[in-house]
Amino acid sequence: MARFERETVSEERIEETRRLIREGDDAGLRSLLDAMRPADVADLIEHLDPKERLFIFDILEPVGAGEVLVEIEPPVQEKLLEDLDNHSLSEIVQELDSDDAADLVGDLPVHRAQEIIRSVDDEVSRELVKLLPYPEDTAGGIMALEFVAIPAHATIQDAIETIREKREEVENLYYLWVVDERERLVGVVSIKDLLLEDPGRRVSEIMNPEVICVHVHEDQEEVARVVKKYDLVTVPVVDDDDRLVGRITHDDIIDVLEEEADEDFSLMAGVMPQEITEESPVKISRARLPWLMAGLFGELISALVISRFEVSLETILALTFFFPVIMAMGGSSGTQAATVAVRGLATGDISLVNIWKRIWVELRVALINGLICGILLGAVVSLWLSNYALGGVVALALVLIILNSGFIGAAVPLAFKRMDIDPALASGPFVTTSNDILGLLIYLGLVTLFLKITT
Amino acid sequence: MARFERETVSEERIEETRRLIREGDDAGLRSLLDAMRPADVADLIEHLDPKERLFIFDILEPVGAGEVLVEIEPPVQEKLLEDLDNHSLSEIVQELDSDDAADLVGDLPVHRAQEIIRSVDDEVSRELVKLLPYPEDTAGGIMALEFVAIPAHATIQDAIETIREKREEVENLYYLWVVDERERLVGVVSIKDLLLEDPGRRVSEIMNPEVICVHVHEDQEEVARVVKKYDLVTVPVVDDDDRLVGRITHDDIIDVLEEEADEDFSLMAGVMPQEITEESPVKISRARLPWLMAGLFGELISALVISRFEVSLETILALTFFFPVIMAMGGSSGTQAATVAVRGLATGDISLVNIWKRIWVELRVALINGLICGILLGAVVSLWLSNYALGGVVALALVLIILNSGFIGAAVPLAFKRMDIDPALASGPFVTTSNDILGLLIYLGLVTLFLKITT
Repeated sequence: MARFERETVSEERIEETRRLIREGDDAGLRSLLDAMRPADVADLIEHLDPKERLFIFDILEPVGAGEVLVEIEPPVQEKLLEDLDNHSLSEIVQELDSDDAADLVGDLPVHRAQEIIRSVDDEVSRELVKLLPYPEDTAGGIMALEFVAIPAHATIQDAIETIREKREEVENLYYLWVVDERERLVGVVSIKDLLLEDPGRRVSEIMNPEVICVHVHEDQEEVARVVKKYDLVTVPVVDDDDRLVGRITHDDIIDVLEEEADEDFSLMAGVMPQEITEESPVKISRARLPWLMAGLFGELISALVISRFEVSLETILALTFFFPVIMAMGGSSGTQAATVAVRGLATGDISLVNIWKRIWVELRVALINGLICGILLGAVVSLWLSNYALGGVVALALVLIILNSGFIGAAVPLAFKRMDIDPALASGPFVTTSNDILGLLIYLGLVTLFLKITT
Repeated sequence: MARFERETVSEERIEETRRLIREGDDAGLRSLLDAMRPADVADLIEHLDPKERLFIFDILEPVGAGEVLVEIEPPVQEKLLEDLDNHSLSEIVQELDSDDAADLVGDLPVHRAQEIIRSVDDEVSRELVKLLPYPEDTAGGIMALEFVAIPAHATIQDAIETIREKREEVENLYYLWVVDERERLVGVVSIKDLLLEDPGRRVSEIMNPEVICVHVHEDQEEVARVVKKYDLVTVPVVDDDDRLVGRITHDDIIDVLEEEADEDFSLMAGVMPQEITEESPVKISRARLPWLMAGLFGELISALVISRFEVSLETILALTFFFPVIMAMGGSSGTQAATVAVRGLATGDISLVNIWKRIWVELRVALINGLICGILLGAVVSLWLSNYALGGVVALALVLIILNSGFIGAAVPLAFKRMDIDPALASGPFVTTSNDILGLLIYLGLVTLFLKITT
């Protein structure tokens, strides 16, 4: 079949590559790589050792090498960039699309970035200088300069000629943007319409003036939300004067969405984004330790809480048996509420408009689940310790604990968002630890009160 | 400015809408809605009460109503569908793209779905019958039938005529697929190339035969991975005989990616996907309870573990103070390892090829973090209880606990994946609870051994 087969990197493929590298078989390796798509070569490279990676990289032509390099996961990419010499790197940057080139050069140490900028063509270096100042997580930071704009008074035939001139430069072209005499964005035309309409007509007659655009300083998360909401395939970027300055395409948006989800997962658990391809245990450890430390010191407060109730625990040591249940129940229900809030804030499905509605839902859910879990745990405690009154008290405690942690789980991310702190941070150690402390306080407090009353 | 302004639904807008509904001002409401994009109307509707939603819906024309309906979040959409009568619903389905129509009808109760299928046009009902059998989470379940295919021997002019005929039906068209005499997919041509090449040339001369496609029964997650990996804007779907049967576009893929991330978040915490817009506490509670129950019964095993060490705890009650620290440390480090594994499996950055490499990294990370946290906790215990030997034992216990939970956190998702169980399920109660049980066992076991030796 002529159709291009997709591929997942198999162990055989990795072994074959390793063998060719060991044998120094450049020709064999080249023909193997030539038959693969850049994204597949990137996958293959991620499975190899640093030295093998460099060997492969030396074999790729600059164009191909660039296409592969941008597909490689950040931690591996970073290491490769360190290992490549400036000459090879310049050649690669030269061939990349402007957004990819800027991303790559932007990640380099300043002096090296400057050397690369000096060594590439004037046009490429002008583009780099234009793109590099924008922060990475803004529309400007992810936009490319490869787009086609035409004046509104141009004819369709003019537009076609413009596209023809830029054919090589702008690879994936689905829309043409229309600008006025001051470069301001005034409309959009699909390539399909150019194809179907009479070439003599003016662009202004067939364009759609209702073009959705984003501002160059806008946050990439907001850009992704706009693209997703309005199902856009590409979105134009404008500056303060409404002048068209760049374009962002669907594949960049998919990357942003994944990056943002990665970030949320990472913040919630306290790991580094993209950690999966990181190979240095020290780097990983450094990223994870703050969360563990926060947990360690937070839970030492729990230890302090428990120590305050030593007398009750001496009276009924079995009360300590249920610490894990108490903590896990508060922890899980808090995490559930927090996860929904964090995810809702991330996808934009929850807006700050309906905070109280959300918290009210959470409280009712917590009441139902608290009652069910409370009754179950109460029954277990009653039977185990043969003390029905104590069972009742533990049941009540669990209801209150789940109510409390449901409230905290929902309220803290929303509060963090209001204070402009990433809400995903809230559902990590913050929510869990405070729920542990408060949960133990509620449990031991109620039980101690009960013991005081009954004795 | 002519440019279309994006919009977030403001409280003022919601209030204004409510007022117009209260006053029964159809004309006012209609002009308000006409000025909004369907996705914005959908947002607005989500912020209203069920009765208000229906009121708005009755005002929208079938075409507009359909465009709005597909943008509404599932829980709200489901309720709206229940409230709409069959006649309105048929009219809406009639106007939708085939994939949206099939999604909508597929969610209805069987008898209602059949009625709708009978009441729409023959062509629409044929499309529905074609699409409905495919499971929701496969390529077939998300593909649309609106695509343009042309025979390889056709000229570019023929292709342009075909596009002209399908102009209304196929809205977003960026690529044309080329088929042989048996409808088998053999190539792809971009609209841009059609625009630039001589209309007399044959399609086969300018097409790219290396077209990446997916199979109709393939999992949507795999489809998303292909689109993401190869930066596709649209992907053709083929059946068992390689015949072209549908197309999947970038916006569907963004939805899939978000859905899958939602699913992972949900499975990890034990909440329902899309819960954020669910308003029934009972439904939410039902979704969350299994996780809480699993936690409850799992932690009762922890209770049993603790009860086995009653003698040690009676000797040094203060040992119970550190239960929260022990559990939180094991829990956090386990969750960290599990989150990375789950996320890596989801994005495809970790393949099953390098399982052992991954686990080896995790073990080294756990050793570093275990030593740091262990020494800190050991110091606290030593000083608090004035017992340096015991502090040392607790430190050692924490090292082992973090090593153990790092291993479990990384290994369980990978093992689940091997067994074709969703790995996200692993990092929920499963990993946490087993880490709690094993953590307490290690801690109390070591300490008891120490007490036995020293007394």
